[in-house]
Amino acid sequence: MAPSNKKPDSEAQVIVESRVSRVIREITPYSVPHYDCGVKLDGNESPFSLPADVQGQVDRAIKAIEINRYPDPLAEELIGIISKVSEFPIGGILLGNGSDELIGMLVTTFTSGTGKVLCPEPSFSMYKLTSLAMGAEVIEVPLDENFDLELDATLNVIRDQDPDLIFLASPNNPTGNMYSASKIAEIVGTAKGVVVVDEAYSDFSGYTFLPLVKECGNLVILRTLSKVGFAGLRVGMLFARESLVTEINKVRYPYNINSLSQAVSKVVLNNHEFVSESIQLIVRERDRVYKALTALKRITVYPSDANFIFFRAQDADSLFGKLVEKDILIRNFNRPGRLENCMRVTIGTPEENDAFLGAIREILAS
Amino acid sequence: MAPSNKKPDSEAQVIVESRVSRVIREITPYSVPHYDCGVKLDGNESPFSLPADVQGQVDRAIKAIEINRYPDPLAEELIGIISKVSEFPIGGILLGNGSDELIGMLVTTFTSGTGKVLCPEPSFSMYKLTSLAMGAEVIEVPLDENFDLELDATLNVIRDQDPDLIFLASPNNPTGNMYSASKIAEIVGTAKGVVVVDEAYSDFSGYTFLPLVKECGNLVILRTLSKVGFAGLRVGMLFARESLVTEINKVRYPYNINSLSQAVSKVVLNNHEFVSESIQLIVRERDRVYKALTALKRITVYPSDANFIFFRAQDADSLFGKLVEKDILIRNFNRPGRLENCMRVTIGTPEENDAFLGAIREILAS
Repeated sequence: MAPSNKKPDSEAQVIVESRVSRVIREITPYSVPHYDCGVKLDGNESPFSLPADVQGQVDRAIKAIEINRYPDPLAEELIGIISKVSEFPIGGILLGNGSDELIGMLVTTFTSGTGKVLCPEPSFSMYKLTSLAMGAEVIEVPLDENFDLELDATLNVIRDQDPDLIFLASPNNPTGNMYSASKIAEIVGTAKGVVVVDEAYSDFSGYTFLPLVKECGNLVILRTLSKVGFAGLRVGMLFARESLVTEINKVRYPYNINSLSQAVSKVVLNNHEFVSESIQLIVRERDRVYKALTALKRITVYPSDANFIFFRAQDADSLFGKLVEKDILIRNFNRPGRLENCMRVTIGTPEENDAFLGAIREILAS
Repeated sequence: MAPSNKKPDSEAQVIVESRVSRVIREITPYSVPHYDCGVKLDGNESPFSLPADVQGQVDRAIKAIEINRYPDPLAEELIGIISKVSEFPIGGILLGNGSDELIGMLVTTFTSGTGKVLCPEPSFSMYKLTSLAMGAEVIEVPLDENFDLELDATLNVIRDQDPDLIFLASPNNPTGNMYSASKIAEIVGTAKGVVVVDEAYSDFSGYTFLPLVKECGNLVILRTLSKVGFAGLRVGMLFARESLVTEINKVRYPYNINSLSQAVSKVVLNNHEFVSESIQLIVRERDRVYKALTALKRITVYPSDANFIFFRAQDADSLFGKLVEKDILIRNFNRPGRLENCMRVTIGTPEENDAFLGAIREILAS
């Protein structure tokens, strides 16, 4: 059969219908609607750019890269620095092209496209999306009214269904709260599969489960450079017992961290004082914004251990639109169910936070 | 059960045995042994660094990045430039963190962890490795004695087994030859699944199947910036009908191309004259090295359409060791079977190629 006799678009359509799983066909891809606003408080990014001296070091590091050569496939120097900063053994650390890729590697390794994944609801959407796309079954357990883990319900599901993989984001996104440490410990102790504690926001809570990896063979910790000033680099970090890392590493693409991101990550981790200072400033600002928001009528504000604040409005769509008119972008999660009228504002610079507070005060008072 | 009562390493071992598929447990991860040699001709990289004026543009582009912000999730500007250079519609283009990630996205989309993947043997090892890791079944069809496709055998397997995905690297790695165009066209015409033609090396053959995508709804083309001077960036490109791209895009991690790689890729694609010149020089050097190698006794040299030359020695391990002693690194594929005593040398600068030719001449004459 000669290719020229075929109708390419109907042929492509037949392929989609016959070769792509129903679950992928029904996915609405993760997407962030784009608005051009001067005050950008929607992405949980750090508002701070590099200090001049660090920028100078970055420029020199970039110039030294031989871009025609492949990156170090093992990212040995970078992992060495991470090991030193985190006081965690080198053999237990793995890097991903953002935590997104690490989530995918975990699903591939521990479910092989047929296993079961448990995640609380609401939480970071990529756990569910990635698991479904890779063919795993997803079990969602609702969080309680304070968005903490519903312990008994979760333990029952674990005992009944024996999930291969459990994703717990603590602090949770988009709700901002840490789960109680004792509940996480009990889940880790009960689960026979792997428990992933995603600590993307733990720099802002000051609490980490990293030391627990020493005691628990089924615990995996995820962290990231994205929330503390380096979202553009796409560097996620995984910490676990070496025997787990050995298996996960087998499904890693050999050159998954490019030369530029490796070089810049090394510079910023070697200059972590300025990162620590920016985190402290964001935490102070978060507490200030939280207090100011709780003084407002017509919104319910939830406590935050992260670099953002989660709240419920009376009419989120209207509030969102009015903020955009005032050149301020936050994240609107409004949809039927647990996230009805829910919104999330990232902590920015003091000036950006003032702009946001002034605007929301004015809108809600009108 | 309290976590403190557990034995973490035996617990991790139980997880590996009970939750990780046998096929992943048995994988030997893709690895490239590291040798420090002055003449590096093992990685199919371009030997050329950036010209000073392009490096200047790169430095300015890097400085302009807000590294605290997430990358453009759609990489719109970069895809726009690729569309212009390739004369291919924007909606049919997708980017990956290297072709490695695109291969993974194709396996996820079209096999959902349970389908069948066909690849010729020998070929690029990541097709098989990624497919197995994701739970797909892999069918290998041996190439003929000239490393071209064994057409009848391949068509028979396609009719009998109806693979969801077929990977054809043309020019093939590590053998260096293009498959005959008519055989590829017949495979594309016969297959009811997706046929991926991986053109990682097509810049050196001057031949592309890209125009065939217009006629064939089941054809996917992969290309990369890695072989033409930018292996450090990790940017792979996928071209297909828009309805296929829509599905593959659903399994893409939203921010898979980081800000630095996007910025540098835009600069180098806007300066593609120097890339074209370096390709022409490599092609001339390849033909010169090929001629020189065919004049040598004790090795069998295969014709190349790529930026490397594949050959068979009488004792590859010994030849490899002696070249390393002379500070020259090439790739040794020696293992029982089709690749017994096979080696691959990447085309370098004229000086590097002279160093290699002088060394191998001396070694083989002794």
